[in-house]
Amino acid sequence: MAGLRERKKQRTRRALIEAALRLFEEKGYAETTLAEIAAEAEVSTRTFFSYFASKEDLVFHDGPERLEKALALLATRRPGETPSALLLRLIEASFDWAAQDGDLTPEEARLRTRLIMTEPALQGRALLLLFDSQLKLARALHDAFPGELDLVEAATAVGSLIGSVKLAVMANLEHDRSIEQIWGTARRAAELTLGGLRSLDEQAAARVRAGAPGMAS
Amino acid sequence: MAGLRERKKQRTRRALIEAALRLFEEKGYAETTLAEIAAEAEVSTRTFFSYFASKEDLVFHDGPERLEKALALLATRRPGETPSALLLRLIEASFDWAAQDGDLTPEEARLRTRLIMTEPALQGRALLLLFDSQLKLARALHDAFPGELDLVEAATAVGSLIGSVKLAVMANLEHDRSIEQIWGTARRAAELTLGGLRSLDEQAAARVRAGAPGMAS
Repeated sequence: MAGLRERKKQRTRRALIEAALRLFEEKGYAETTLAEIAAEAEVSTRTFFSYFASKEDLVFHDGPERLEKALALLATRRPGETPSALLLRLIEASFDWAAQDGDLTPEEARLRTRLIMTEPALQGRALLLLFDSQLKLARALHDAFPGELDLVEAATAVGSLIGSVKLAVMANLEHDRSIEQIWGTARRAAELTLGGLRSLDEQAAARVRAGAPGMAS
Repeated sequence: MAGLRERKKQRTRRALIEAALRLFEEKGYAETTLAEIAAEAEVSTRTFFSYFASKEDLVFHDGPERLEKALALLATRRPGETPSALLLRLIEASFDWAAQDGDLTPEEARLRTRLIMTEPALQGRALLLLFDSQLKLARALHDAFPGELDLVEAATAVGSLIGSVKLAVMANLEHDRSIEQIWGTARRAAELTLGGLRSLDEQAAARVRAGAPGMAS
């Protein structure tokens, strides 16, 4: 029974997010009211508020929850688990969470990214969330390896993984149309960051020797 | 003669930046006018405009110039230079530019960071600059290694280096008080990103075996 109720809640939540993104695209973010979003999703304004505190909160709906999950995972370091193994487990789990949560379609995700990057009311929160979340994750990683990782090392690990995945995905958005392709790009970026940028040197040299076949772009 | 004039220009520029940061701190960013900044720096409003187009432009004064320099450097790949060697050259050059430019003191840099992170009028531009600059650098790195680095690899390299240096410096700002200490942290982050996060595993294990002496934090 609880499962059914939970699924109904997820559906309403999705309906509100879809309706909001559609209206933001059509009318603009500032011009869209909460009441219009609720009407478009066929629920009352009161129902809107039982899911989101504001329009801004709806746009960033997955942020706080994902951060909590990530911090909780970093606190479950297994006996003998190395820093890179724990980070890899976090990356894999992040992909799973995105898949489970009835997440945005790639088109919706693109729309949201454009919205966040261009809407003054959203840019500020995005900037704060970006650095604040990463600093919290760095401290959690540092705490997971007492006496083994100092804070600079933990921050380097978090900053390089998130920085590389974000930029790789962003740079390749023209080519990656499906969510699977986007994850493939994210995985490549994470793997390269774990292995180190110096590994590019040998790979580049090998491509020169081989006459550079099969380069995608 | 040109050197003298250039130095005078640099001094006026510095005076304007110092005056602006002082006033923003005292009165708030939005409440400070261009005329007040000019008066505080003992120049005319007209002179202000020959240095900066706006208050916002003053805050981000070094961004466009540094980006141009970085893009130009990436276009000067030397025969046989590997991707990691070129990136290392870029990092070293960035430190030199910061030192030469009569740059902000650490206290001023801290003030500016706080300002950018909290002032709605600045947050948006910071977010755009952050991603836009990195995407341009990624494309320039990709172009420097035709057939050797694809765009995902180039974006991964740029995103992980900038992401790691930024977060490491930010996480350690409480401990690093001098500009030399901040650069030391930045260097460690860059070196670790070039070598790969997996190198942390062995290091962490060695610290456990040694009873973890000498861990800073």
